[in-house]
Amino acid sequence: MAKIRILNKKDIKKVINLKDIIDATEKAYVQKATGDAEVWPMVFHEFDPGHADLDIKSGNLNQAGIYGLKVVSFFDSNENKNLPVLTGTSMIFDIKTGQPKAVLNAGPITDYRTGAAGAIGAKYLARENSENLLMAGCGALAPYLIAATLLTMPKIEKITLVNPKNPDHAEERLETIRERVNELLYESGVAAFFDMKAESDTEKAVAEADVILTATPSYEPMIKKEWVKPGTHFSCVGSDMSGKQEIDENIMAGALVFGDDLQQCKNVGECEKAFKAGILTELRAEIGDVISGKIAGRLSDEDITVFDSTGIALQDLVSAACILTEAEKLGLGTTADL
Amino acid sequence: MAKIRILNKKDIKKVINLKDIIDATEKAYVQKATGDAEVWPMVFHEFDPGHADLDIKSGNLNQAGIYGLKVVSFFDSNENKNLPVLTGTSMIFDIKTGQPKAVLNAGPITDYRTGAAGAIGAKYLARENSENLLMAGCGALAPYLIAATLLTMPKIEKITLVNPKNPDHAEERLETIRERVNELLYESGVAAFFDMKAESDTEKAVAEADVILTATPSYEPMIKKEWVKPGTHFSCVGSDMSGKQEIDENIMAGALVFGDDLQQCKNVGECEKAFKAGILTELRAEIGDVISGKIAGRLSDEDITVFDSTGIALQDLVSAACILTEAEKLGLGTTADL
Repeated sequence: MAKIRILNKKDIKKVINLKDIIDATEKAYVQKATGDAEVWPMVFHEFDPGHADLDIKSGNLNQAGIYGLKVVSFFDSNENKNLPVLTGTSMIFDIKTGQPKAVLNAGPITDYRTGAAGAIGAKYLARENSENLLMAGCGALAPYLIAATLLTMPKIEKITLVNPKNPDHAEERLETIRERVNELLYESGVAAFFDMKAESDTEKAVAEADVILTATPSYEPMIKKEWVKPGTHFSCVGSDMSGKQEIDENIMAGALVFGDDLQQCKNVGECEKAFKAGILTELRAEIGDVISGKIAGRLSDEDITVFDSTGIALQDLVSAACILTEAEKLGLGTTADL
Repeated sequence: MAKIRILNKKDIKKVINLKDIIDATEKAYVQKATGDAEVWPMVFHEFDPGHADLDIKSGNLNQAGIYGLKVVSFFDSNENKNLPVLTGTSMIFDIKTGQPKAVLNAGPITDYRTGAAGAIGAKYLARENSENLLMAGCGALAPYLIAATLLTMPKIEKITLVNPKNPDHAEERLETIRERVNELLYESGVAAFFDMKAESDTEKAVAEADVILTATPSYEPMIKKEWVKPGTHFSCVGSDMSGKQEIDENIMAGALVFGDDLQQCKNVGECEKAFKAGILTELRAEIGDVISGKIAGRLSDEDITVFDSTGIALQDLVSAACILTEAEKLGLGTTADL
């Protein structure tokens, strides 16, 4: 009889930190690029298109010794029921025996692993001496992306927050995001001293930025090509469904464009429109090939670089494995014979 | 925070019984036929072909108010590790909110739902006055198929057990199977009086049978067409992978052939070879259409009928839902906040 561990949000919050999730995610990207980790076909089902659907993402990570899956459902009617609109649940299995090991609430993990992804894009593709960070989007993901990028890009000195669709919103959200960034850095054992301001003029903020992180649910470009200075890096995490787009597809022309999964970027990512318009024919590589050193990232300080992070099951699984290891050490969660 | 219930083998054995699983499975078949339940695409991954693989089967059952999935892994090296070679785990979610409800050990459910499937095939396709039941295959599934068919076919008077590949094996297994059939009938509240014998001559046993259940891992036909008398019904549950076959494909010529899933029967079921050889071009219908009365089953006492049960996720999910309802009433299992 297998013993499984059930980890809820509270358990996970006791052990999760961005530093560990960044390290784990880098390893997952490299394993994907080398074939040591695989993403399995996604199951997608719509109960009520636009209102209720779900997907099952799964895969294996040989070095972490696991395979597993994450079920994410979206029910917009949950808003009226005091229930989360998005519900994520992960299951982890032992890759040597197939025995179930754990069930985890995937909610908190999703925020951390998405922040880690954007920051890894910046670490391997942005100019090393980047100082000005621009966060486009002021939602729940913003603090995770900012804090993770402060961890991977230690020379960042200035952080600007914009909400291109609703310019005043950045100022309203500034304090909440600042506080959460502080907490996230503290969790990772890093003292937080940073300069962060809200800006209502997106064009001005883009023109000054070295690194731009985008995390919005946008379906049309918010950042125009003519605003962008040479040498800028973009990490775009908002596009995870066909039709979504955050930055002008013409930015991709002449840029060095990387992704987390070659096929998924074409189908649902920030690059979808550029591919359909013939602006892009291929990504340069998956980010794992850059991390491993197989493919060069940025070639000069003048290059515009883009990391299209569509989100892959391996990020969730490697993060879950990392959390499970810590939770086992501390005896957290509920255990049950299965 | 969702509260989930973890049900292990012991918990499940306290509430499961064939009668309930037969009733639930009939409903699932009908819902599939009417579009009220859906089977989602299967994920299949091989770690080491022939030695280690897994599949994820999933779907929704609107009337039961759930969706869910079952992960089944096969690791033949587990035999040396005192672990099960097959490991099954199911997860059930609320179809109105996407909240996780339960995690179940799927092992015992698989035996019951497979027995129920074969018995439902007999109930709707065999001659109502069938008296002679033949069980071909003496493995773990045999008692479940026999007991379930005794429940659905109350006029059965004689049961014969054969192992076509290893004729003496039937006699060796007779007592163990008889005992388990008794237990299964007792669980369903039925007193057991039945005549059961082992037979080493498969041809002779087939010639006498009214209903033939097959549950073997065979890759070549064990039962020849010329042995089969008019009016015989077959429920074949052994073929669940491409290449498997239990009965002569020529039996399908002129027979009335039904299945649990039209496409799956073509790809991996008992009918695969008959389709490939051009003996069959279409199944008459899915069994759900027969249960609901939309399509006639047997047309005369002379027809040979076949039910090709390949196994579908809905059987597992409806059974899990049925068990969960009983377990909740009794407060069984471990509950945890997720």
